[in-house]
Amino acid sequence: MDSSSALLVGDLAGVAVFAASGGSAAVGKRLDLFGVVFVGFVAALGGGILRDLVINQVPPLAFADWRYPATAIVASLAVFWLHPHLDRLRRTVLGLDAAGLGLFTVTSTLKALDAGVPAVGSCLLGMLTGIGGGLVRDLLLNEIPVVLRREIYAVASLLGAIAVASLVRLGWGSVLTFTGAALLVFVVRITALYRHWSAPRPRLGGGATTDTG
Amino acid sequence: MDSSSALLVGDLAGVAVFAASGGSAAVGKRLDLFGVVFVGFVAALGGGILRDLVINQVPPLAFADWRYPATAIVASLAVFWLHPHLDRLRRTVLGLDAAGLGLFTVTSTLKALDAGVPAVGSCLLGMLTGIGGGLVRDLLLNEIPVVLRREIYAVASLLGAIAVASLVRLGWGSVLTFTGAALLVFVVRITALYRHWSAPRPRLGGGATTDTG
Amino acid sequence: MDSSSALLVGDLAGVAVFAASGGSAAVGKRLDLFGVVFVGFVAALGGGILRDLVINQVPPLAFADWRYPATAIVASLAVFWLHPHLDRLRRTVLGLDAAGLGLFTVTSTLKALDAGVPAVGSCLLGMLTGIGGGLVRDLLLNEIPVVLRREIYAVASLLGAIAVASLVRLGWGSVLTFTGAALLVFVVRITALYRHWSAPRPRLGGGATTDTG
Repeated sequence: MDSSSALLVGDLAGVAVFAASGGSAAVGKRLDLFGVVFVGFVAALGGGILRDLVINQVPPLAFADWRYPATAIVASLAVFWLHPHLDRLRRTVLGLDAAGLGLFTVTSTLKALDAGVPAVGSCLLGMLTGIGGGLVRDLLLNEIPVVLRREIYAVASLLGAIAVASLVRLGWGSVLTFTGAALLVFVVRITALYRHWSAPRPRLGGGATTDTG
Repeated sequence: MDSSSALLVGDLAGVAVFAASGGSAAVGKRLDLFGVVFVGFVAALGGGILRDLVINQVPPLAFADWRYPATAIVASLAVFWLHPHLDRLRRTVLGLDAAGLGLFTVTSTLKALDAGVPAVGSCLLGMLTGIGGGLVRDLLLNEIPVVLRREIYAVASLLGAIAVASLVRLGWGSVLTFTGAALLVFVVRITALYRHWSAPRPRLGGGATTDTG
Repeated sequence: MDSSSALLVGDLAGVAVFAASGGSAAVGKRLDLFGVVFVGFVAALGGGILRDLVINQVPPLAFADWRYPATAIVASLAVFWLHPHLDRLRRTVLGLDAAGLGLFTVTSTLKALDAGVPAVGSCLLGMLTGIGGGLVRDLLLNEIPVVLRREIYAVASLLGAIAVASLVRLGWGSVLTFTGAALLVFVVRITALYRHWSAPRPRLGGGATTDTG
C-alpha cells in the first residue's frame, strides 16, 4: 500500500468511526433516521471541511469525492439499524470517538504539512480537525462538548500531531510510524478515561464552592 | 428573464424569507432590534457564506454584493416592525422556512454544479445550504435545530437537490423546471408538517421509555 | 511604527484580550487547564479564521503565523494562573471583551478593504470578526451570546467599522485615526454597559407578558 492510499484509508476509517460515534450519540437522544444520519455526517465530515478550506483544497473532499459522504452515510445507517443496547451506547461512543481522534489527527496534520502550512500551524490544525467532529456532535445534541470536560482529550490529539510533525522533520515518516502516532492518541485518550486522568483546574480565590462546569 | 438574473432573484428571495424566518423567531424570544437583525442576517446569509467558501467564490456574495446584506437587513427590520401577533409567529416561521428551504436548495445546487463540483457533492451542498440557515438560527436561539426534529426536513431539501441535478443531467434545466423543484421542496415540507409525517426512529433494546429527543 | 506593523500589533493585542476574555469566562465555569486554553484560543482566533477564509488569505494567520496561536495560548495560560477573584471575573470579561471588540473591528475592516472587498461588505466583515470571538465563546460555554442580549454591542462595532471605511475613503487613514476608531468602539460599548443603554424591543400584540429573551 503506497502512502497516498494509506492516507485515504486512514481518512475514510476516521470518517466511518466518527460517523458511528455521532450516529450512536444521536440514537441515544432518540433522533429519527435523518437526524441520526445528519449528526453522523456532520461529526464525520465537519472537521475535514474546515481543514480543507484552511489549506485551500476546494471544493473540500466531503463534496469533491463521493466516497467520503458515502462512508459517513453508510456508517450512520449501520448504527441506526445495528446499534447496541442503550446501556452500552455511552461506552461505544467514547471508544469510536478515541479511534477517530487518532486517525483524523494524523491524517490532517500530514495534509497540512503537505500543503505547506508551518509545523506549529499544522499541529494546531491536526488537533482542531481531530476534536472538531466530536465538538460539533456535542453542540448539535446540546451537550457540553467532551473536549471541554475534565478528561485529557485535546492534549492526546496534540501529542499525536506533534509526534507526526517530528517524524516528518526527522525523515522517519512511514505508514508504520504514522499508524503508531494514531495508536498513541488512542491509548492516551482511553487510558485517561479509565484512570480518570484530568488536567489541573483553576483555583478560585473568591471562596466559590459550587461547580458549574 | 435570463437564467442568471433568475438565479439572482431566487437567491435574494431565499435571503428575504430566511431573514424573515430568523427575525420572527428572534421576535418570539423577545430579542432587541439588533438581536432580531443579527439572527435574521445569519439565518439568511450563513448557509450561503459556507457554500461560497466551499466552491471558492471569494469573497462570498454576502460581502461582495451589497444587495445580499441589504435584503437580509430590510427583511429583518420589516419583521421587527410589522411582525404578526404572537400566536401566529410559529406558523409564520415554519412557512417562511419552508419557502427558503426550497429556494436555497435549488440555487445552491445549481451554483455548485456550475462551479464544477460533482453531482453527489452538489446535492449535499445544496441541502446543507438549504438547511444551514435554519440550523444556525436555532442554535443561536438555544432551540434543538428543526432539522433534527421528527418531521421530514432535510429529506425534502435532498429530494429537491436530486431533482435539480437530474434536470441538469437530462438537459431539461430551465427557469420553469427549477421553480418546479423549489415548489416540490416547499410542498413536501409543508405536507409533512400538516400530516405529521416523520422518519423512522431507532428501536432501543435497553428498555428505554423516556424520550429526550 | 509603520502601518503594517501597527496592524500586526493591533491584531495581536486583540488576540490577547479576547483570549483573556474567553479564558476568564472558562475559569468562571470551572473548566480545566485545556478547556480554558481551548476557549481562549477559539475566542481569540475563531473570528479571524473566518475573516481570512472570506478574503482568501489561506492558510489563515492563526495557522500560518505562529505568533497568533502563541499569543492566544500565553494569554489564556496567564488568566488560568493569575485570574482575579471570582467576584471580579464578570467585570474583567466585559472590559476585555470591549477592548477586543474595538481592536478586531478596526483591523478586520482594514484587512477586508485591503483585500478589495467593497465598503459595505468590509464593514459587515469587520463587525462579524469583532463580535465572532465573543459569540463562539458564549456558544461553547452554553450562554446566550452577549451580542443577542439587550445592550448595544454589534452597533458599537458597526459604528467603528463605518468610521474606518469613512477615514479610508476620505484619505484620513493613519495609525492615530484608526486607534481613535478602536477607542470609539470601546467607549460606546462601555458607556452602554454602565448607562444600561439598550436597543428597542419588539412590541408583541398577542398579549405576551413573559420575557424569554
